Amino acid sequence: MTDHRQAALDYARQHERDFEKNLQEFVAIPSISTSPEHKPQMQQAADWVANRLKSLGMNNVQILPTDLHPVVYGEWLGAPGKPTVLIYGHYDVQPVDPIELWRDDPFSGRVDGDRMMGRGASDMKGQDAACFNAVESIVKTGSLPVNVKWILEGEEEIGSPSLPKFLEQHKELLKADFCLNPDSGMLARDEPTLTYGLRGLAYFEIRVQGPASDLHSGIYGGAVHNPAIVLAELVAGMHDRDGRITLPGFYDRVRELPAEERAELARLPITDEKTKALTGVPEVYGEKGYTTVERIGARPTLDVNGFLSGFVGEGSKTVLPAKAMAKVSMRLVPDQDPKEVHQQLLAYLEKNAPKTVTWEVVMFAGGAASISDINLPGAQALAKAFETVWGKRPYFKREGGSVPVVGYMQKILGMESVLTGFGLPDDNLHAPNEKLDLPSWHNGTKALVHFLFNLA
Amino acid sequence: MTDHRQAALDYARQHERDFEKNLQEFVAIPSISTSPEHKPQMQQAADWVANRLKSLGMNNVQILPTDLHPVVYGEWLGAPGKPTVLIYGHYDVQPVDPIELWRDDPFSGRVDGDRMMGRGASDMKGQDAACFNAVESIVKTGSLPVNVKWILEGEEEIGSPSLPKFLEQHKELLKADFCLNPDSGMLARDEPTLTYGLRGLAYFEIRVQGPASDLHSGIYGGAVHNPAIVLAELVAGMHDRDGRITLPGFYDRVRELPAEERAELARLPITDEKTKALTGVPEVYGEKGYTTVERIGARPTLDVNGFLSGFVGEGSKTVLPAKAMAKVSMRLVPDQDPKEVHQQLLAYLEKNAPKTVTWEVVMFAGGAASISDINLPGAQALAKAFETVWGKRPYFKREGGSVPVVGYMQKILGMESVLTGFGLPDDNLHAPNEKLDLPSWHNGTKALVHFLFNLA
Repeated sequence: MTDHRQAALDYARQHERDFEKNLQEFVAIPSISTSPEHKPQMQQAADWVANRLKSLGMNNVQILPTDLHPVVYGEWLGAPGKPTVLIYGHYDVQPVDPIELWRDDPFSGRVDGDRMMGRGASDMKGQDAACFNAVESIVKTGSLPVNVKWILEGEEEIGSPSLPKFLEQHKELLKADFCLNPDSGMLARDEPTLTYGLRGLAYFEIRVQGPASDLHSGIYGGAVHNPAIVLAELVAGMHDRDGRITLPGFYDRVRELPAEERAELARLPITDEKTKALTGVPEVYGEKGYTTVERIGARPTLDVNGFLSGFVGEGSKTVLPAKAMAKVSMRLVPDQDPKEVHQQLLAYLEKNAPKTVTWEVVMFAGGAASISDINLPGAQALAKAFETVWGKRPYFKREGGSVPVVGYMQKILGMESVLTGFGLPDDNLHAPNEKLDLPSWHNGTKALVHFLFNLA
Repeated sequence: MTDHRQAALDYARQHERDFEKNLQEFVAIPSISTSPEHKPQMQQAADWVANRLKSLGMNNVQILPTDLHPVVYGEWLGAPGKPTVLIYGHYDVQPVDPIELWRDDPFSGRVDGDRMMGRGASDMKGQDAACFNAVESIVKTGSLPVNVKWILEGEEEIGSPSLPKFLEQHKELLKADFCLNPDSGMLARDEPTLTYGLRGLAYFEIRVQGPASDLHSGIYGGAVHNPAIVLAELVAGMHDRDGRITLPGFYDRVRELPAEERAELARLPITDEKTKALTGVPEVYGEKGYTTVERIGARPTLDVNGFLSGFVGEGSKTVLPAKAMAKVSMRLVPDQDPKEVHQQLLAYLEKNAPKTVTWEVVMFAGGAASISDINLPGAQALAKAFETVWGKRPYFKREGGSVPVVGYMQKILGMESVLTGFGLPDDNLHAPNEKLDLPSWHNGTKALVHFLFNLA
């Protein structure tokens, strides 16, 4: 081991408390991208990131505007002839409702034993910070062995709507050998993981209108089709008895899983018993003919993310609601196209919605699925770093979540991504009481130090 | 026409503005019975009613407590040998949400041309007030020709839960020849109406729980059964393709409509075109094999009154919700029993709910349907009064709404009810922008003056 690598690792070990304090500052900024009233906090988070990059000695640090939330850029290109890695991150977070289920202020960043609590602590301010920590450890003890560029966006949690245009406009600036994207996670503490497949996303809101305004359910019940029932029937019809999605043509482009890949996925340490324990469901559920691991990573799914109609306060109100709304999203696999799924949803509704109501569909987000090459030098450098830190080969997995940016990087920049992360499955991503596992996170910092040296 | 009757009618005509001002005072009290934070306003409304009864010369005026909201009682028994009529009313109103759809403060009582706007203006503070007005017109110009008792409850809009016990406890106090219940309405302006049938009500909240807390739909979509989809499927299964309700045994006790009654109902001036115009729906809808009039008045129905799951704010959130809730209520016809319907719902859910979720049902309200005798002296006195004021025989109809008190009066006090009212179908009952048609209401006051003289 070189002296510099060892010095950087020592620095990382000695500054764990400082890294935690720094992350607490970042978590304290409520940068909720979906909420218009948090726009000032979005700017505040972008400023914080820009200052952090400057503190790491990055050059050309810029806060670049988009149609919505800005992108933060920075670079250090002082290692000519060596590879350039583009480090991706996002500084926005999910909303916090239902707020009443949080045990802390969601933006406290309180450390509770091995955990740091807070919205974004794991997804993904903590992961951004692991990269900051690793680079800090190296630059405070010498020079970076490779070139780095950073891009941190503010719209990942709303589907990265401004990113494609941004990538188109900054192709030259963003040129790199590959992208490190730490927005994925680990299968368990001490189970380092590289993700090679990600599902895509298509997210819609379906709005059904019956009568012009709310009616008395006694006076009109029997005359008017209830829009909540109509929407429930439409949603119910979107799956068949085998848990397959019924939108016309939905499976036409779905790439089947090769037998070898099914065998590889079967080796992952994920069991139905573990999933039940982790989620609290009485039984797992999904498309017939596939294991839970396959259904999550390699099969498309359709979920209702929200449903609202009529009176939902305490007690009873005998209203026949004027309208009903469902947020419905699909997780996509290669080679499904979100725009085609939009058309399939419209075709389904045109065929199945009764003439007793009117309806409309709004599309909120869409991103294609992606699969990366696990033999890339970047992926191999990371896998080797994980072996050094954890003493074991990492798992290679397909993940159910969507990172549209990975698809955009491939399509627009022609750049492969190496996906990883140091969050755990029970981190409560997108849910109340999000937390970050600090031992895994500190190991992540060390692994990223090794990764950067391995790359050189 | 007696001099006194004529004097009372003249008084009513001369005091129309005063009656409106008095009703505005009553409407201004936000007596929302379902809302715990409006408890002081419920007491305020009860006090207002008690003072109004005192102003009419009523004796023994009392605000009698129940387990929830008090009942106001008053009487005038100065016509020995003459019939005694028990006038029923309720001083509570429905909630006002969605508040943003109201054009006025819901409690303004603003007069806009022929209309008075406000929650409760039609249902039923206006109807209570028509009775106050008629009695005021008679007692300010002489003595009442018959005996009257009043009972005004504060829980009608939540299903009258305290009323059965109250009636049991005050059987002697409430003794009367029959009950006048003006909580029904008119088919149209200038179409006076007596209601002889009312549907019952059974109101439930179904709660489905999947995972212990909200999950990320990417990470768990495919592993976990979505509770919003489960509940949508359960709701969808509650009707078959013919619009019939599928709860086991639901139709077993439903009394079939005799051919003569179907012919009588077919004469009512209610068409599908009018229903479409009134409600704004593209097409009417309901159980196959029955007309809209039959479906509303004489057939049971099942409606979703509210549905809530997951994220329902603006924009997108990729959450797999932990739970889903639907408020589901059934309108019942003779001889269905709300307790049996509760069992039928539980049986349906036990049979159809998947093992991937847990669920529970809360019953909020239940009341049986009722049918009254249209040849009662009270009904005939009212029909004759309507003919005098409007110059035409009234319609006799069955109504879709539920007035559980009519069933309680029959069962507990052995007392028939005469049902009427001066609200119109487009009064927006239980909906934003509730209003009262003032010309119909003033005619109603006059009709009630005639009614009381006709009874003597």
